[in-house]
Amino acid sequence: MRRLRDVGEQAWLARLIARLGRTADGGRVVVGPGDDAAVVRAARRPLLLTTDTLVEDVHFRSTWATPRALGRRAFAVNASDLAAMGGVPRFALLSLEVPPEMSVARLDALTAGFAAAARRAGARLVGGNLARGPHLAVTVALIGEAPGRIVTRAGARAGDLLYVTGALGAAGLAVRRARLAVAPDRVAAGVALARVASAMIDVSDGLVQDVGHVCRASGVGATVELARLPVARPCRRTLGAHAAEFAATAGEDYELVVAIPRRRERRLLALAPRLGCRMTRIGRFDLGPARVQVLGPAGRVVGVGRPGFDHFRR
Amino acid sequence: MRRLRDVGEQAWLARLIARLGRTADGGRVVVGPGDDAAVVRAARRPLLLTTDTLVEDVHFRSTWATPRALGRRAFAVNASDLAAMGGVPRFALLSLEVPPEMSVARLDALTAGFAAAARRAGARLVGGNLARGPHLAVTVALIGEAPGRIVTRAGARAGDLLYVTGALGAAGLAVRRARLAVAPDRVAAGVALARVASAMIDVSDGLVQDVGHVCRASGVGATVELARLPVARPCRRTLGAHAAEFAATAGEDYELVVAIPRRRERRLLALAPRLGCRMTRIGRFDLGPARVQVLGPAGRVVGVGRPGFDHFRR
Repeated sequence: MRRLRDVGEQAWLARLIARLGRTADGGRVVVGPGDDAAVVRAARRPLLLTTDTLVEDVHFRSTWATPRALGRRAFAVNASDLAAMGGVPRFALLSLEVPPEMSVARLDALTAGFAAAARRAGARLVGGNLARGPHLAVTVALIGEAPGRIVTRAGARAGDLLYVTGALGAAGLAVRRARLAVAPDRVAAGVALARVASAMIDVSDGLVQDVGHVCRASGVGATVELARLPVARPCRRTLGAHAAEFAATAGEDYELVVAIPRRRERRLLALAPRLGCRMTRIGRFDLGPARVQVLGPAGRVVGVGRPGFDHFRR
Repeated sequence: MRRLRDVGEQAWLARLIARLGRTADGGRVVVGPGDDAAVVRAARRPLLLTTDTLVEDVHFRSTWATPRALGRRAFAVNASDLAAMGGVPRFALLSLEVPPEMSVARLDALTAGFAAAARRAGARLVGGNLARGPHLAVTVALIGEAPGRIVTRAGARAGDLLYVTGALGAAGLAVRRARLAVAPDRVAAGVALARVASAMIDVSDGLVQDVGHVCRASGVGATVELARLPVARPCRRTLGAHAAEFAATAGEDYELVVAIPRRRERRLLALAPRLGCRMTRIGRFDLGPARVQVLGPAGRVVGVGRPGFDHFRR
């Protein structure tokens, strides 16, 4: 097995760049990977910029997934941030910290998984960086565009309805089972939902915590009804009565949480069949203080312990 | 001393975002830090995209520099990649991996140093990410624009002259002395040089290795004359007869290496007084194979050992 320290940074990069260079660029990539910087042509509309990192032994363990799946996920969790504003990814930068003993085959599979996920989403891997490190860390920067309306966390108003795409809890359960969940692709749904939403966010750290971000940015309160939560079947089956509470706080689902003004609910319901995922109403925004109240099955406010993940608090 | 694990990710980020929000945005930042993605308006010209990482115990040790200087350097080494194509930085993303025991004051100083360096360069820190990690790692993505011509590594032709900005060797010497060198600001020089250059690259891994990248991209050979090298005074003083060879391979200088067609040398010399740094002719490009020949003081080809740094080869 060849390891990175056998091949060297320069040789590995040269091989990767040669491989990436063969992909079609659609005319928007003026200078691709391998120069000091990439040069691209963006459309004449605002750019969306985001970055996120997956760190070994923090976000994942090497035994949890194939390197290809890890590369796909690194793209997907970043694309999710763009989707949550109505954006689509166009250009990607991939920065890798890699231990010298990592095999070349694994690193090739990771970058191939990332580049393929980018291509499927209509984006191009145009640059990156490779550095030695004590563990594997994958940092992605995405440059995107919004085909239509851009939606922030800050537009929710009292009275708006709280919807969520897909189902929750399966990703958190996968982590418990030492596996890496597949992040859903909600980019097309995000673009469509941006037409009717007053605010959006993706569920990364935990639904309750993430809805709390919308509350603080918008200056409104929110109520989430556990009984309405679309809990993923494996989560319901495994956790039974505790499944909804788990799904409300476990995070990692990368579904979209959407605030919908009541007057636009009919437009949302008309859109729904073409979103490629379920849409479930799980609560509402109100005039209360900027925090999230969680209602239990009996309609009473319940505590959920920690509302989501914090990197520095356990 | 408060540590990051006492404050938590969410609280630290909220404080940082509040602080960054107070800086003027000049109308180009539509949505600043704190949402799922930043939204910015770019000019109607090609975008330049680059990313680079500084890893603790690989690129620096925590005792080598203040956290503020480290933040400045993280910006500067990325800006150097844009300068080497004639670009200027406009928007920055900052991804941090941080050990929980790191003090809040140090992390504040690092981000403040980064944001201040960005502002001085006419760029804005618009987003980022904070993750727990076993060591400090600072990954930057810069989005830039070129006010004029864009220059790649690929345009050098046989007969072109090889110039370098500033002086070489001081940064490599600083590393030997367990200090972090200050990276020069060559952004304005890069924009001016792009008008006359056929190819450019910045000296990051080592002059000989970096000129080699230009050779391979352009399909030309190159000769570097050690006797012509602008060796930094402390390097000359410390290393004496070996200073030039050291300066040719040590890297970390972030000066610009520029290929100048002979017919444009007079234009270069006319520009030179306004570049804010020395310009020194150190060699030429030729029809030979795509590699760098180094001439010693007696005009004979000499070996220089390793031409520069490789993360996975020692």
